[in-house]
Amino acid sequence: MSISIKSPADFHVHLRQGPICELITPHVRKGGFDLAYVMPNLKPPITNTEQALAYKAELEKIDPEVEYLMTLYLSLELTPDEIRKAKKAGIVGKIRGPNGSELTGVKSYPRGVTTNSDGGIESYETYYPIFEAMQEVNMVLNLHGEVPSDAAANVHVLNAEPTFLPHLFKIHAAFPNLRIVLEHATTRAAVEAVNKCGPTVACSITAHHLALIVDDWAGQSWHFCKPVAKFPDDRQALRDVVKEGHPRFFLGSDSAPHPPHTKSTSSPTHGCAAGVYTSPILLPLVAHLLESFGALDKLEAFVSTNGRAFYKRPVKDEKGSRTVTIQKTTTGTLVDAEYALGNDRLVPFWAGKQIGWEIVHWEAYG
Amino acid sequence: MSISIKSPADFHVHLRQGPICELITPHVRKGGFDLAYVMPNLKPPITNTEQALAYKAELEKIDPEVEYLMTLYLSLELTPDEIRKAKKAGIVGKIRGPNGSELTGVKSYPRGVTTNSDGGIESYETYYPIFEAMQEVNMVLNLHGEVPSDAAANVHVLNAEPTFLPHLFKIHAAFPNLRIVLEHATTRAAVEAVNKCGPTVACSITAHHLALIVDDWAGQSWHFCKPVAKFPDDRQALRDVVKEGHPRFFLGSDSAPHPPHTKSTSSPTHGCAAGVYTSPILLPLVAHLLESFGALDKLEAFVSTNGRAFYKRPVKDEKGSRTVTIQKTTTGTLVDAEYALGNDRLVPFWAGKQIGWEIVHWEAYG
Repeated sequence: MSISIKSPADFHVHLRQGPICELITPHVRKGGFDLAYVMPNLKPPITNTEQALAYKAELEKIDPEVEYLMTLYLSLELTPDEIRKAKKAGIVGKIRGPNGSELTGVKSYPRGVTTNSDGGIESYETYYPIFEAMQEVNMVLNLHGEVPSDAAANVHVLNAEPTFLPHLFKIHAAFPNLRIVLEHATTRAAVEAVNKCGPTVACSITAHHLALIVDDWAGQSWHFCKPVAKFPDDRQALRDVVKEGHPRFFLGSDSAPHPPHTKSTSSPTHGCAAGVYTSPILLPLVAHLLESFGALDKLEAFVSTNGRAFYKRPVKDEKGSRTVTIQKTTTGTLVDAEYALGNDRLVPFWAGKQIGWEIVHWEAYG
Repeated sequence: MSISIKSPADFHVHLRQGPICELITPHVRKGGFDLAYVMPNLKPPITNTEQALAYKAELEKIDPEVEYLMTLYLSLELTPDEIRKAKKAGIVGKIRGPNGSELTGVKSYPRGVTTNSDGGIESYETYYPIFEAMQEVNMVLNLHGEVPSDAAANVHVLNAEPTFLPHLFKIHAAFPNLRIVLEHATTRAAVEAVNKCGPTVACSITAHHLALIVDDWAGQSWHFCKPVAKFPDDRQALRDVVKEGHPRFFLGSDSAPHPPHTKSTSSPTHGCAAGVYTSPILLPLVAHLLESFGALDKLEAFVSTNGRAFYKRPVKDEKGSRTVTIQKTTTGTLVDAEYALGNDRLVPFWAGKQIGWEIVHWEAYG
């Protein structure tokens, strides 16, 4: 059995910098994708048009076959004028919202970030002029939907996402025409929240959150990512909404490699880096997972058409598109144990495990 | 400021076997304790009187100053006759109940362990003849209060303990005179459950569960143990019941060392060993923690008198007892980074961190 998918698009991926970037950028295509929506959390973060264009040029030098959509990192440095400039410059120019960890970063700016009194939540009102400009030029707001942990308020990694959802509703109500993506949803509450919103609110789901639950990362750093995988019932809600083929839910892998020494916990004082690396096996992995819960018929919707429709990046675009064919393997395909990176290495999700699908063919489509 | 405590007793500790046992058994006294309630989960587990007495003799050879209370591992091999034999042999002879991981081990016996239909829970009825004999000879049942994870029933490491509690109520109702200890409680639900039970039901609490929450072990294997630390509100319930000085709640450290290579997660396919090693710093650590939430006045109750009263091991016993004096340090005491173990090493909880208390004096008391 084989399945052909038109121009798979990964609407959330980390391509890093330097040698890691050179290794993993070609893994986008290796994993079956020809569109990468690239996260801006570099050092320093991508906060303006020039940086975003320069980063895009670097990526295109490494693999010009992939279409890169660039994002800007939301910070107080960003102005409504910069938004309009980014749009004019041809940057697809989505803006990534504050998130759990990055919220803290935004908070640490001394220039007047206000904090609500009800639980230390970041005030999104500070960014309303930016959101206004984004709505005006039709950009997309990507929200990492977690609030920072706060023991005094009983907020922790497991309820950080549900606790965030009132902010989603509030921003959506204030800017009903602003397209918003709730990124890498992990809970039933998040799925239901997006479901309740209007057609301008969508939701990305990673491959690994369709596979993992809390038990899988308890004591296993390779499965530790943010947001953390939640409970079986939450995973079921993610699987169900994919199986339903809901048009506002689509793949964003959040693929984020870290070398083993940053995943090691031999130090009792330092935790490990958060992130799961799925890029090089992404399309076969997603097919394997969707098959496991009877949603293989929704594969193309989940990995291509739904996201492309929301982002207004149709399959046929100025760069042309491809059809990728995957085939069910009888023996299983072994996931690579690792990828050499100078004297270091990167280890993909499910390293050494069998996946039931493999990419067999690429075909020009556009 | 200094505090003197009469004969601290740790009512739940793992002393292992072989070279590790030789290293860590003296750490009981190093940590300020002169009674150790020793867990039977060795390889093979301690399932009969002879094994328990032989293990006790080994421990006494290493450090004869500590009083060791031995336990038997509950399994289908255990008979009511063995219970009576253990009692006659002078074994204090507590029985450790099935637990999350070990339940699976019990389940794997092919000799007729039944499983209820309502969620795959181990049937404790199988052990009722044992409990009957224990009640008759006045032994204590130690329950690891977790059910195995079961994704189909939405049971996972975070709700495994609350899901177990109906079993506690049921056993308590069936054997109202059987003394039961719910071991290493981690949730508000567990605290409330023990509170509701009669005077024959008590509860042990570890030091590390007074310190940690889920965020602390997310991506940090050195803080990973079973049961896993829960939410801030759960930790608050543990702290509150200690602060209240409730007589049926007392320390059981569950100190459980593992060498770094078993805590490492450089393998993407294997998780790390569960356990936190607190023995060598236990009394200063508990003082530090109780001070942090204003419960220092309950220190002696928590680490000595409450547990001793429940177990009927009064401070003055045939072996004599001591007073241990700890002193508040102005500079803090640095926790050892590690303990050499041949070519290997053990790393204690809070390695390299400062604790506000140190042991300054031992004095004969009995």
